[in-house]
Amino acid sequence: MQILSLSEIKGLIDVPALIEDLEEGYALYSEDKVEVPPVGFLHFQDPGGDVHIKYGYIRGDSVYVIKIASGFEVPELGGMASDGLLLIFDQKTGQLESVLLDECYLTDIRTAVGGAVAAKHLAPKTVTGIGIVGTGVQARMQLKMLAHTVDCHRALVWGRNEERLTCLVNDIQQDPDFWPGKLEVQGTTDMDHLTANSNLIVTATSAKNPLIHAGQIRPGTHITAMGSDDDGKQELDHKLLEKADLVVADSRSQCLLHGEISHAIREGLLAEKNIVELGEVVRNPALGRTTDDQVTVVDLTGVAVQDIQIAKMVSRKASEGSEA
Amino acid sequence: MQILSLSEIKGLIDVPALIEDLEEGYALYSEDKVEVPPVGFLHFQDPGGDVHIKYGYIRGDSVYVIKIASGFEVPELGGMASDGLLLIFDQKTGQLESVLLDECYLTDIRTAVGGAVAAKHLAPKTVTGIGIVGTGVQARMQLKMLAHTVDCHRALVWGRNEERLTCLVNDIQQDPDFWPGKLEVQGTTDMDHLTANSNLIVTATSAKNPLIHAGQIRPGTHITAMGSDDDGKQELDHKLLEKADLVVADSRSQCLLHGEISHAIREGLLAEKNIVELGEVVRNPALGRTTDDQVTVVDLTGVAVQDIQIAKMVSRKASEGSEA
Repeated sequence: MQILSLSEIKGLIDVPALIEDLEEGYALYSEDKVEVPPVGFLHFQDPGGDVHIKYGYIRGDSVYVIKIASGFEVPELGGMASDGLLLIFDQKTGQLESVLLDECYLTDIRTAVGGAVAAKHLAPKTVTGIGIVGTGVQARMQLKMLAHTVDCHRALVWGRNEERLTCLVNDIQQDPDFWPGKLEVQGTTDMDHLTANSNLIVTATSAKNPLIHAGQIRPGTHITAMGSDDDGKQELDHKLLEKADLVVADSRSQCLLHGEISHAIREGLLAEKNIVELGEVVRNPALGRTTDDQVTVVDLTGVAVQDIQIAKMVSRKASEGSEA
Repeated sequence: MQILSLSEIKGLIDVPALIEDLEEGYALYSEDKVEVPPVGFLHFQDPGGDVHIKYGYIRGDSVYVIKIASGFEVPELGGMASDGLLLIFDQKTGQLESVLLDECYLTDIRTAVGGAVAAKHLAPKTVTGIGIVGTGVQARMQLKMLAHTVDCHRALVWGRNEERLTCLVNDIQQDPDFWPGKLEVQGTTDMDHLTANSNLIVTATSAKNPLIHAGQIRPGTHITAMGSDDDGKQELDHKLLEKADLVVADSRSQCLLHGEISHAIREGLLAEKNIVELGEVVRNPALGRTTDDQVTVVDLTGVAVQDIQIAKMVSRKASEGSEA
C-alpha cells in the first residue's frame, strides 16, 4: 500500500497532466458517468469546525476515492487550520490502495486548476489583463495556475484590506516560481479599476454580498466565480448573470442549490435550460464562447470528480517515480 | 501520526476494556451526547460491492472518528472480501491523529463485543446453555466474546449446512484460545433442539425470513439478534417480540428503520414507547431484566459510537505500548 506525506505529494503535482485529467473528469461528470453521493458533513462548535466527506467513482474506472477535508478555528494559530486526506480504493475488491496525507493541499490545487480549465475553455482569445478578486490562498493559487492556460503579462489583485493586499503582491513579485519572468502584478482596492483593466476575472472570496455589479463588466470579459460554494455566499450581482451571454456551471445540480447561479435563478433572471456545464463545453467547444465580445461566467462549486482525478494523478506519479 | 497495520491492531485488542468503553458509548448515545450523521453509502455493480462510511463524535470528547468498511464480491476468493479503515482526528483542530488499517476487523470485534455487552445486562442470572444461530464470522466471534460476560459451559451452534456446521464446531473445539478449557460445543440443524436447551441465544445470520418462532422460546430466555442490520432482513418472528417482556434496541431510531423491531412495529405488535435503549439499561439496570423468567430481546443494528469507542481503545493501547 502507498502512503504519501504532504511533502512527497507536493513534489508530484503535474499541472499540465492535471488540467487534462480535470477536463476528462468534468466531461465524464456531464455525461453522467460519475457516481457522486451526497456530501457527508460533521459540524463542531466551540471551537467551530466543519468536516466535509466527498466520495465517488467513475463507472468502469479502476478505483473509488474518499476525500476528507476539514477547517477548524484554531485561535492559537490566529485563524483557520485545514486538514484532511484522500483515500484510493480498488473498485473491484474494495482494497485500500493509497493514503494521501495531503492536509487539504490537494483540495486547494484541484480547485485552482479548475479555474485554469475554466479560463482555457471560456476566456477570450486575447487576455489583455487578469483580475483576481481576493487575497486569500485561493486568490494566489488561482492566479498561479492560470499561467498554464492563459498567455498574459499583467495582473491586478483586488482586496479590501490594504495590508493583506500589499503582502500578497510583494509575495507574488518575489516568488521566482510564480509565472517566472513574465507577470507584472499590482494591487488595487478599486473594483472599477480592476474591471476596467481586466478581461479575465477570477473571484476567490467568501463574500456574502456581491462584489462586482453588472454595470462594471465590459463586453468581451470572462469571469470565473469560485468563492460561492455554500448557502448564503455570493460574489457576483445576479443581474450580471442575466447580462452574460453564456453561464457555465461545473455541476448544474450543485449550482442550482448554491453558487452564483442559484441567486440568478431565484430572481428569475436566468433559465435553468440556458445553463451549460463545463464538461459539455470541454467535449463540444461550440457550446462555449463563440465571439470575443461575449460576456461569459463560469460558476465553480467544486465536484468530487476533481478529487477523484487529482488523487489518481498523484498516485500515478508516485508509482511512476518509484518504478523509475 | 500513528499508523497501525492489521497485525499490530490484533495485538492491541483488550476485550474487558472494550466492554467498558462500549457500555459508556451506548450510554452516551442514549443520553444524546453523540453526534452521528447519516451513514454514507457507495454501491457497485459487476462485481457487486458496498461501502459504508460511518462517522461521528462524542460531544466534549477529544476526537472525532470516520470509519470506512466495505464488502465486495471477489469470485477469485470464492466469496466476499472485506476491507476498510478507521481514522481518528483531533476534535479541536481537525488534525489527523491515527490511521487504523483494520481491513474491517474492528467492525467484527465491536459488533461481537456489542453482543457480549447485551448479554451482560440482559441475560438471566444463570445461563444454562448458549445457543448460537449461524455459522459465519459473527457466529463464531459472538460466541467467543460471550466468554467475557457469561459464565456457562455448554453451547449449541445451529446451522442449515451440516458441512459448515461441523467445520465451525471442530474449529472452536481445537482452538486453545476459545473459552480455554471450559466450553463444550455441539452443532445442530434442529432449531427446536437449540431453543429447548439454551436460555441465552444469539442470532447472527443474514436471514430474510424468521428462523425462530414465538412458540419455540421458553420463559427465562434472552435473545440477542444482531443479523438484521438492513432492510429486508429478519431473524425473529415478529410475534416473538410481542411475547417478550422486554425489547431493547441499541439505537431506537435505527431499529425503527430496519432491524427486528421495525417488523414488529409495522405489524402493530410492539409500541414505540415500550422500546428501551441498551444505553438506558447500562445507566439504569432497573430498566432491564428484573426476574429470571422474563423473555428479553436485544436488537443490535450497529451504531457509530461503537466505532468511535473501539478506535479510541486501539489508539490508546498503541500509545501505552509505545511509552512502555
